[in-house]
Amino acid sequence: MSSRKIVVVGGAAAGPKTAAKARRMDQHAEITIIQKESDFSMASCGYPYYVGGFFDDRAQLISSPTGVIRDSKFFLGAKGIQAMALTEALSIDRENRKVKCRSIGSDATFDVEYDKLVLATGADAVRPPIPGIDLDGVTALKSLADADYLRQVRDEKKVRRAVVVGGGLIGVETCEALELAGIEITIIEMQPQLLMFLDWEMAKLLENYIKTRAANVITGNRVVEFVGENGKLTGVRLDNGGEIPCELAVVAIGVRPNVGLARECGIEIGSTGGISVNEYLQTTDPNVFAVGDCIEIPHLLTGKQVLAPLGDLANLQGRVAGQNVINGNSVTYPGAIQTGICKVFDWTAGSTGLSEAQARRAGFENTVSVICPGVDKPFFMGGELIVLKMLADRDTGRILGVQGVGPGDVSKRIAVAAIAVQAGFTVGDLLNSDLPYAPPFSPAVDPIITTAHVLENKMLGRMPSLSPVEVKKRLDDGSGPFMLDVRSPVEYETERLGIGEHLIPLGQLRQRLNELPEDKTAEIVCYCKISLRGYEAAGYLAAKGYENAKVMEGGIAAWPYPREK
Amino acid sequence: MSSRKIVVVGGAAAGPKTAAKARRMDQHAEITIIQKESDFSMASCGYPYYVGGFFDDRAQLISSPTGVIRDSKFFLGAKGIQAMALTEALSIDRENRKVKCRSIGSDATFDVEYDKLVLATGADAVRPPIPGIDLDGVTALKSLADADYLRQVRDEKKVRRAVVVGGGLIGVETCEALELAGIEITIIEMQPQLLMFLDWEMAKLLENYIKTRAANVITGNRVVEFVGENGKLTGVRLDNGGEIPCELAVVAIGVRPNVGLARECGIEIGSTGGISVNEYLQTTDPNVFAVGDCIEIPHLLTGKQVLAPLGDLANLQGRVAGQNVINGNSVTYPGAIQTGICKVFDWTAGSTGLSEAQARRAGFENTVSVICPGVDKPFFMGGELIVLKMLADRDTGRILGVQGVGPGDVSKRIAVAAIAVQAGFTVGDLLNSDLPYAPPFSPAVDPIITTAHVLENKMLGRMPSLSPVEVKKRLDDGSGPFMLDVRSPVEYETERLGIGEHLIPLGQLRQRLNELPEDKTAEIVCYCKISLRGYEAAGYLAAKGYENAKVMEGGIAAWPYPREK
Repeated sequence: MSSRKIVVVGGAAAGPKTAAKARRMDQHAEITIIQKESDFSMASCGYPYYVGGFFDDRAQLISSPTGVIRDSKFFLGAKGIQAMALTEALSIDRENRKVKCRSIGSDATFDVEYDKLVLATGADAVRPPIPGIDLDGVTALKSLADADYLRQVRDEKKVRRAVVVGGGLIGVETCEALELAGIEITIIEMQPQLLMFLDWEMAKLLENYIKTRAANVITGNRVVEFVGENGKLTGVRLDNGGEIPCELAVVAIGVRPNVGLARECGIEIGSTGGISVNEYLQTTDPNVFAVGDCIEIPHLLTGKQVLAPLGDLANLQGRVAGQNVINGNSVTYPGAIQTGICKVFDWTAGSTGLSEAQARRAGFENTVSVICPGVDKPFFMGGELIVLKMLADRDTGRILGVQGVGPGDVSKRIAVAAIAVQAGFTVGDLLNSDLPYAPPFSPAVDPIITTAHVLENKMLGRMPSLSPVEVKKRLDDGSGPFMLDVRSPVEYETERLGIGEHLIPLGQLRQRLNELPEDKTAEIVCYCKISLRGYEAAGYLAAKGYENAKVMEGGIAAWPYPREK
Repeated sequence: MSSRKIVVVGGAAAGPKTAAKARRMDQHAEITIIQKESDFSMASCGYPYYVGGFFDDRAQLISSPTGVIRDSKFFLGAKGIQAMALTEALSIDRENRKVKCRSIGSDATFDVEYDKLVLATGADAVRPPIPGIDLDGVTALKSLADADYLRQVRDEKKVRRAVVVGGGLIGVETCEALELAGIEITIIEMQPQLLMFLDWEMAKLLENYIKTRAANVITGNRVVEFVGENGKLTGVRLDNGGEIPCELAVVAIGVRPNVGLARECGIEIGSTGGISVNEYLQTTDPNVFAVGDCIEIPHLLTGKQVLAPLGDLANLQGRVAGQNVINGNSVTYPGAIQTGICKVFDWTAGSTGLSEAQARRAGFENTVSVICPGVDKPFFMGGELIVLKMLADRDTGRILGVQGVGPGDVSKRIAVAAIAVQAGFTVGDLLNSDLPYAPPFSPAVDPIITTAHVLENKMLGRMPSLSPVEVKKRLDDGSGPFMLDVRSPVEYETERLGIGEHLIPLGQLRQRLNELPEDKTAEIVCYCKISLRGYEAAGYLAAKGYENAKVMEGGIAAWPYPREK
């Protein structure tokens, strides 16, 4: 019996996972990993935490859970896989099923034959053609070498000011890492907001928080030049002419699938720039599969192909491809819903499914959303704020997406929401969910369920409401409604919007209606810290004949603009 | 227009929630809460944490999130609800729709009329007829008065030894609370294990951990007498004749629905002992609804009625009943899947859906399960162990239940599983889930997904395996298999089972086959810390012609028995 030859190009995440799964499917196959870099199975998502000093042992980034370095010896001994480091795949001869390779540093080439080939070539950091980008002090945080460089920056403590170009996941994580190293940071983002997977007002809440740390955020502007002296970075020049002095710049404006090898041998590349694969993760060549950051996959809600360069999906895809290269096309990879999360200092920001802006672009025209702040645990257990936003299709009630930001446990709620979205849950399906409840873990009604309750109220027309953005627009255009803060005086003294609001605590509202506008058609917007009391006030006023009593969604906790206190 | 009269009997959780929701539905209704105790909306699930000193301000147990005590004044002012404390509902005249009441401490009675009545009479702690139960020093932890008593015990620091009778949720939480007060604890549980919502081997892992604290656990035994001197508790006598000296005993053997009021007026009580309600939470009298711990509800997996006295469900039910008493029967409460969770020192134990034992009792005959340990985050981020057990129907693949124990974030995985079970997910549906991934929150493949992967392997026959319980049985009956530990020598020195195992690290297995039994039909059981390497070893051995190579599910992390190290 001649054994099958499986060749995997790429040794970061999806590649080794594919190889390991293939091995478990077939103990006799010849399995080879071709890896350009010197390391395998690098935990690249961990780089920001190594740079930030969450841990100091670099080896943990390339080790198995039991502390064994995942090198060629490990792969051979533990898995019977030939893992070739510092080996570049130069080209693919699909007709003769072989990959032309070269050892880095040598000119000689050699061929590796395959029966099935798996491309796990990953993605590269986008390097924009900005003058000065080659200056010393300009880097990315994509490779282990980048991480080493930035860790050294941290340990040497010479850099005082840094700029992070790009406010996506990696940019924000890098910001945290460098700030923890005592460096003064400015994030510069071309878009009007950080983290484009969030809607604007959610991103703004996070931005407001980040600014409370030693980190500045500039949105809607971009770097047009890296300025230097003697080959060393001294600052960045912005589009609006401003200049920010800094000794370090980390460029994190995104990644681009590394598809050169595939393209050159005629394998189809999709319109997103990722390699096209079918549900078996097979490319247009039946003998070639592709997995990980280099492919495009279906978005389960829109049906459109998207790039989703995330380590968790890479591993799942590797498990699928590893089976199919051995057993034939037997298992499918369904696609994803672009669930994402990041930690920024003491806050978390996460999202699953579609944001409101994404839904609009994807053609969902009749959606309804609500922002709902709450606590992750009871106050007496040290509960922390989380602000959730839930989006649903108005006709079907189907949940299209959930976002969350705040210092509380956002991760659990996004995980729960991710399953609900994938299951096709409607808002109604979520209303009475039986989640694990005990005070160390959640309030009696979990914030994700409360959010569903509020969204249902809104969908049923029980909650005439305005979002903070809508309220701000009315205030700015002079059609200012009567703003009614129904909290207690103590709360008002501690924290308030300062937008000409009137304070009448909910408990006194029944006795103080005379302080409201005489015109019962006047727009009155009620709110409190999270607008639960605001909701009760609006309901009471409506019953008292105020025809235009509304609640401001999310209250002060969801107000994305500057406030007086 | 004459306004509707809504009367709610019970002011703990479900009652006030019903009243508040009814108010939001109808600002004109007359809403009354009749409450026997002096307080309202007590956060009774928080009592163990008040006793344990997680917080010191008792008022937080009966306050709104903004620190306002939820007393009669609060309910009237903020919600327009008449909340009558220290008022007992004596009987219900269903024909004339009135409740006969009495102010505690007064003999005079008065009637409260209703259009719709809501029973939220809760559950009482079961008080077993054991001699000596009236001794000073024997208490429960059900009422706020109980919490006050135990908090005083904590603060006075006089009690040295205590016994907790009952190893359910409350018993285990009480154990933690008292241990934190510096008291030496013994939990005594009649059943062979703690926390009956877990399967035996999962409960045993937790028990082993609890015993590492200043807490002893005795299972399969029960208290037959509380022993005392001069009216004060001095110890408890066990069924096996043993006696345990103690100055305090907390009886936590469960709760029983408080249905006297309902029963006496002829409302139907179900076979579980809870009030029967339909999907609108309406009793057999269309004008009387019931919510919270006093009712029985459908289990969504078995279709059978169950008691589920949990604060989160009480709130959800209140929201449903609050709508129906105003709008007519318009919204339904579907039932639950008995999701439960508790914290015990640094561990968490949780469950959703059916345990294996429960599934068997419910008539699921063809199930398959697996135990899968993992970490909640990457090791470099300080990941902690969690051990999950997943149960599925073998024919359909439907996930029937998930349990988890360990120091890691079990809560998130049980929450995710709860939604998956409610959504009717199969193991296959969970395999490629798009959960939020970043190193501060999870490993690249979340343990709940890994568990689904392992269970799929088992269902597909790719993983010939034995559970630790099955292995132990074989070892005990002398048919001992060849036990093959494939970890490293360093790991072996730190921790090992000591059951006559042979150590061959996975990386050396290919070279050391000669150390295995010559008989290729001999049973060889491979394992490691979590049995991932064990799985790889078994696969390799099978390919080498060992016909009976198996993996021990969950490895050392799931071994519920004593071990050598």
